[in-house]
Amino acid sequence: MLGLMQSQPLLISSIVTHAARHHPHAEVVSRTTEGTIHRTNYAGIEQRARTLARALMRLGVQPDDRVATLAWNGHRHLELYYAVSGMGAIIHTVNPRLAPDDIAFVLNDAGSAIIFADTTFVPLLAAVAPLVPGVRAFVILADPDAMPEVTLAPGQELLCYETLLADADDDFAWPRLDELQASALCYTSGTTGRPKGVLYSHRSTVIHAYAINLPDVLGLRSVDRVLPVVPMFHVNAWGTPYAAPMVGASLIMPGRHLDGASVQSLMNSERVTISAGVPTVWMGLLQHLRATGGKLDTLQRLICGGSACPPMLIDTFAQDYGVRVDHAWGMTETSPLGTYYSPKPGFESLSPEDVKTLQYKQGRAVPGLDMKIVDDAGAELPWDGTTFGNLMVRGHWVTRRYLNAEADATDADGWFATGDVSTIDAHGMMQITDRTKDIVKSGGEWISSIALENIAVDHPDVAEAAIVGARHPKWDERPLLIVVAKPGRTIDPADLLASYAGKIAKWWTPDEVVIVEQLPHTATGKLNKLALRQQFRDYKLASAAD
Amino acid sequence: MLGLMQSQPLLISSIVTHAARHHPHAEVVSRTTEGTIHRTNYAGIEQRARTLARALMRLGVQPDDRVATLAWNGHRHLELYYAVSGMGAIIHTVNPRLAPDDIAFVLNDAGSAIIFADTTFVPLLAAVAPLVPGVRAFVILADPDAMPEVTLAPGQELLCYETLLADADDDFAWPRLDELQASALCYTSGTTGRPKGVLYSHRSTVIHAYAINLPDVLGLRSVDRVLPVVPMFHVNAWGTPYAAPMVGASLIMPGRHLDGASVQSLMNSERVTISAGVPTVWMGLLQHLRATGGKLDTLQRLICGGSACPPMLIDTFAQDYGVRVDHAWGMTETSPLGTYYSPKPGFESLSPEDVKTLQYKQGRAVPGLDMKIVDDAGAELPWDGTTFGNLMVRGHWVTRRYLNAEADATDADGWFATGDVSTIDAHGMMQITDRTKDIVKSGGEWISSIALENIAVDHPDVAEAAIVGARHPKWDERPLLIVVAKPGRTIDPADLLASYAGKIAKWWTPDEVVIVEQLPHTATGKLNKLALRQQFRDYKLASAAD
Repeated sequence: MLGLMQSQPLLISSIVTHAARHHPHAEVVSRTTEGTIHRTNYAGIEQRARTLARALMRLGVQPDDRVATLAWNGHRHLELYYAVSGMGAIIHTVNPRLAPDDIAFVLNDAGSAIIFADTTFVPLLAAVAPLVPGVRAFVILADPDAMPEVTLAPGQELLCYETLLADADDDFAWPRLDELQASALCYTSGTTGRPKGVLYSHRSTVIHAYAINLPDVLGLRSVDRVLPVVPMFHVNAWGTPYAAPMVGASLIMPGRHLDGASVQSLMNSERVTISAGVPTVWMGLLQHLRATGGKLDTLQRLICGGSACPPMLIDTFAQDYGVRVDHAWGMTETSPLGTYYSPKPGFESLSPEDVKTLQYKQGRAVPGLDMKIVDDAGAELPWDGTTFGNLMVRGHWVTRRYLNAEADATDADGWFATGDVSTIDAHGMMQITDRTKDIVKSGGEWISSIALENIAVDHPDVAEAAIVGARHPKWDERPLLIVVAKPGRTIDPADLLASYAGKIAKWWTPDEVVIVEQLPHTATGKLNKLALRQQFRDYKLASAAD
Repeated sequence: MLGLMQSQPLLISSIVTHAARHHPHAEVVSRTTEGTIHRTNYAGIEQRARTLARALMRLGVQPDDRVATLAWNGHRHLELYYAVSGMGAIIHTVNPRLAPDDIAFVLNDAGSAIIFADTTFVPLLAAVAPLVPGVRAFVILADPDAMPEVTLAPGQELLCYETLLADADDDFAWPRLDELQASALCYTSGTTGRPKGVLYSHRSTVIHAYAINLPDVLGLRSVDRVLPVVPMFHVNAWGTPYAAPMVGASLIMPGRHLDGASVQSLMNSERVTISAGVPTVWMGLLQHLRATGGKLDTLQRLICGGSACPPMLIDTFAQDYGVRVDHAWGMTETSPLGTYYSPKPGFESLSPEDVKTLQYKQGRAVPGLDMKIVDDAGAELPWDGTTFGNLMVRGHWVTRRYLNAEADATDADGWFATGDVSTIDAHGMMQITDRTKDIVKSGGEWISSIALENIAVDHPDVAEAAIVGARHPKWDERPLLIVVAKPGRTIDPADLLASYAGKIAKWWTPDEVVIVEQLPHTATGKLNKLALRQQFRDYKLASAAD
């Protein structure tokens, strides 16, 4: 017997119509690419999004069509989010930090035929245009008098965003779509191959917005002023463009300048209460504050995700600036929020040191998502805070299958393997210990490469360190430590290996040290473990000759 | 094109499994009908709910079957919530304050074949049993040694809850149901006829739980300890039995004694942070605190709904006890939360008096529900805070049709008429001004009966007052004021009518005053306007003879 409640689809358009109706004056403040401050509100965003939907229809955009963006966080990008998804098309947010070749790949893979871009990206457009013959229109997010020249391929059109809007009217009504309809498309950063497309639905996006607005997660209120430093091309700015209007919180959009000085000035001038970003951004903010003696006038919380947040950031922002740093974990495939740190009952009676140890972990599962750790045979491992295993997730906003893939990315029970290795403690707090592919498997046991690298970089002579599993006839793999010395320092391998004593199980100690001039990095600045593995996988360990 | 995310139904069982997995030690503390304190946690609740599901199957309960309860707030009632809905059956929470005849009506209307009851209700069961031949089993929520004697009709069986559980095992696995499956059934209080059944679904219940956990609504956290004084037979205790385990907040269940002393002692001994109930309960708590000089040690917030919260309660709890009173509005047909008061940007610069005026309103729409006010022709009215009209709602957790009804209760656009008359101001804050059927329609204009009654009871001679629209040949209806004098006082009609001057539009002033010994009330203590209208509708107004 079915319930007798109203049945309405969970639609992205319902978020912006709710905001326009119940929070019309809540602000959307954007620092433009020209450096000026643009102010509008949710009534304005919703009205312009409807106008844009009409303009998109005039451009021939049909339901299911992919519409790409190459844009910073700003009001026009927000209009595109709602117009494209709301009309039943799919917004494909392209990461401009990818190489032009990869940008062309994702545009072609997605089949995006129109791309909206900030003026910043005009050189990139010129480089990409000949590689994407399927893209028929390039729309520049600018006023007519600020339109740049761009050399395009034959059959490709250059258009002005504000002209398109001026020529359309706002008589568009949001259609009642299937809530399972695809709404947005993000690609993984593709560290081990070509980027893969993750296709979100209206339903997954709206449920994710409700869930991350729980008070033990982002927990936005209408009185909040939210600054997403994390870009709208990076897993939808972690869902903030949906979560903020859902509750009427104001959005402060930082545009292209994400350095410490720019972020601090916007936080103070716009009375920001909550901001979200990766550790490097908060490190930049902290360095700027320390160098200038600056303060954060209204900020209450920083959300730190993307990679593990250094404990120093959590401690320093709390002690010196009265700002809480919330640790979060997620990935493109999880929309992205999977876990979030917030205290549980009883934490108030723990020692400050014990609380810090918990805060340094990535947090506990957001309601609506479940997680477990398993061994290589798939058996579930205990939540004891020390046993580590492959992290698996399942939930309303987790990927089932990549775009254009022929098989599901989930196992028979619907679990998605994150590719991360982690522990989970008795409080349900998860801590990433490694990437699955970086773990060293020695005699059937696992050794965390991150744990070994962290000890190495604590040594006074070491600038950077990487652990690679080198083949071993008896143990299958043994850890090989590859290091770069600090300028003017010389690394003594024996002394460095001696520094592991007492910090780890003895059998985890790397077998050998290789000193190199520099380590390879990916385009996004991470260690290129793939290249290192190719180079050092067959390194002849002295221990292998035993 | 559909999104490629995991598709999982929104199920009530997923709430309790999440709680058992991620918050196993969060407490469920119950004051039993015997007056003792019972302690368990979500791991225990989930395990017992699975055992109970197995026991229900052994009793022959099938998916879609209705299983009734006559029970206070306690751990066994919580187990029933999850076992019955989780297995695919429908929990029918019966209000024991209804007359036995109405209880029999709702049991028969629902087709409930099994009823679970606290020992408190044994006399009620005996009275109802012969009227409900379709009920084949009466299960008493007690240990075997506390089982009462109950005289039942032939074919009706008396069973012991704990014996049923002891005889079942916990090898039950929660089934994957359709999220639109009916989960729970509540009846309206039926002030104008027989109670009507509202049939909630898993989907509506889970979305409602997410929405009411937004920080601008109930906003529960895992560190909260929540005391639902509002009964689990009264619109599912306003959703708290779902919202608390969703986030791992502890539940403190008060059992049968809801007087000020009992509530205060439980709040302090169990370190309650948030509590929810109707104004009369908070009035009782306040009187007890004042009489005893008692304090509230840990309480932060009271949620006040069910009927308009007297401003005095909001002011006094804030000033004298440091407790915020949040004003909410809803009804059985809205699961129940429709609106909730919380501040918006800019309120911090309003005067304290202006903020109070806003707090006295019922609040703004919970995201996922929309509202509007309309005139009798259905035209939408402005949100100016003074124009009042029929309040209409629409949303994921609003009723579409009553149980056993032949037509939808919504209009062509899906709006549900609440039967309330309200204003909405420019902040989106809604204020109930009347029930639709109580409004006085004079010359095509509307007069609020509640506004006129409130002024009358402010007069020092008046104990209670009611307004009825009396027929009038020229104006259609004119307000007639019916009053009861305070003991030892005499009401002077002219003096009473003079007290309206300056407080309302002159033409709103009642035409006449009728002094009576007492006013009729319903079983739940509300003014019986239906009886008053029948008695006074054709009252001969002197003005009608003009």
